Amino acid sequence: MTVTEEMLNSHPGADVAASDLLITAIDACYECAQAGTACADACLAEDTVADLVRCIGTDHDCADVCVATGAVLSRQSASDDNLTAALLAACVTACSTCADECESHADMHEHCRICGEACRRCQKACRALLIEIG
Amino acid sequence: MTVTEEMLNSHPGADVAASDLLITAIDACYECAQAGTACADACLAEDTVADLVRCIGTDHDCADVCVATGAVLSRQSASDDNLTAALLAACVTACSTCADECESHADMHEHCRICGEACRRCQKACRALLIEIG
Amino acid sequence: MTVTEEMLNSHPGADVAASDLLITAIDACYECAQAGTACADACLAEDTVADLVRCIGTDHDCADVCVATGAVLSRQSASDDNLTAALLAACVTACSTCADECESHADMHEHCRICGEACRRCQKACRALLIEIG
Amino acid sequence: MTVTEEMLNSHPGADVAASDLLITAIDACYECAQAGTACADACLAEDTVADLVRCIGTDHDCADVCVATGAVLSRQSASDDNLTAALLAACVTACSTCADECESHADMHEHCRICGEACRRCQKACRALLIEIG
Repeated sequence: MTVTEEMLNSHPGADVAASDLLITAIDACYECAQAGTACADACLAEDTVADLVRCIGTDHDCADVCVATGAVLSRQSASDDNLTAALLAACVTACSTCADECESHADMHEHCRICGEACRRCQKACRALLIEIG
Repeated sequence: MTVTEEMLNSHPGADVAASDLLITAIDACYECAQAGTACADACLAEDTVADLVRCIGTDHDCADVCVATGAVLSRQSASDDNLTAALLAACVTACSTCADECESHADMHEHCRICGEACRRCQKACRALLIEIG
Repeated sequence: MTVTEEMLNSHPGADVAASDLLITAIDACYECAQAGTACADACLAEDTVADLVRCIGTDHDCADVCVATGAVLSRQSASDDNLTAALLAACVTACSTCADECESHADMHEHCRICGEACRRCQKACRALLIEIG
Repeated sequence: MTVTEEMLNSHPGADVAASDLLITAIDACYECAQAGTACADACLAEDTVADLVRCIGTDHDCADVCVATGAVLSRQSASDDNLTAALLAACVTACSTCADECESHADMHEHCRICGEACRRCQKACRALLIEIG
């Protein structure tokens, strides 16, 4: 059981649905935020940094959106489905764009391969939660 | 001229459009992030805090989404219109939800009145930019 | 092996020390950021919210400092020991203050008990890294 | 009167000192967060990006610490002087390091000149507030 799961299970709100999809999405958001930040930094240390400027940009965008999404999803007391859905849609786009970019040179840079995988997990988790919300 | 405008005008990218709408939206995002954070804190200091828990939640959601939106909009080198549009849509929703909530008790709490106005400015600025992007 | 460990191990910088202490501190920061955000939200849903306003405040301060610390620690290319040390010191203080507060009513609120433990882990991890940096 | 000033003046806490130094520091933190984010992005668009990797790193560190500091300073209800002092010290260091870096090539890149000035303002504002707190 992750800390995220423990936290949601101890929430006093009777209507707080600590669904597996919610827990998975929150953990994927924070994991992807770290991976995007670290990948941007690793790209900066590559000799070929000039070829990686787009990757660095999508990494940071993805990390920023994931941190915000992880926080909003962690807040269930006054949760608003319209906002949750719109933000999940933005997070799916951010993760997808970053994964596409990272995967395009994953064979050259291990950090891009790992980051691309974290982005795909987060994209998938946010999309699944978005479908659940309806 | 705000620092945001100076920063965008000095960007080397030939295709970076430092439009008035973009500058206004970025400044509105950071302003609204501060207002939401401060309003949540002021609500916590009210005797009637138990009646303000929904406001505190929407304040924080709004602040988190605004910080992410302000950062992504400030990043123009590898800007992706799909992500920008999706994030602007989420920010419009976050600001609108928070403004509705703050306005509902703006006559009782000055901080909610001021925060509600900051949310409306940010909502309007993000919607205008969203329309410009198309 | 966590994603954080994989990311740091794939960093091209020869002098990037992906020490166990660094990895543990980064993961603890993101975990504590989530726990603090979720604990503040759970406190808002308690009937006794008026007694928990200080806890909500320390939760948010702790979450904000932990997110910033997790990101700065994830950036090793141009890492500056002075900044790392100062930020780790701030994070130790934020986690310690929040843990003290959460522990003071941990017997009444399970979410405060869990959050307090996450804060102590992060405080300990950041202090250990701070000592390593010297 | 900025929105920050209006927000702090409307705080119900009798002991909330909406001092000029506090207001100036909060506004400087958000301004510097935007400038650092935009400067990192502008550096990525320069032909000489390979020479600017250290600047990009210090820009991001500075932006992350400034966002956290702006939020914590905006939260006055349960403000803890130990945390405020430690975080202000970290913010002074982040701004100073970033300003030193930006100024070292401010004559070549206008965005670095502007960002360096925003960093100095924030460094000065945070140091002044740190002295006031004692």
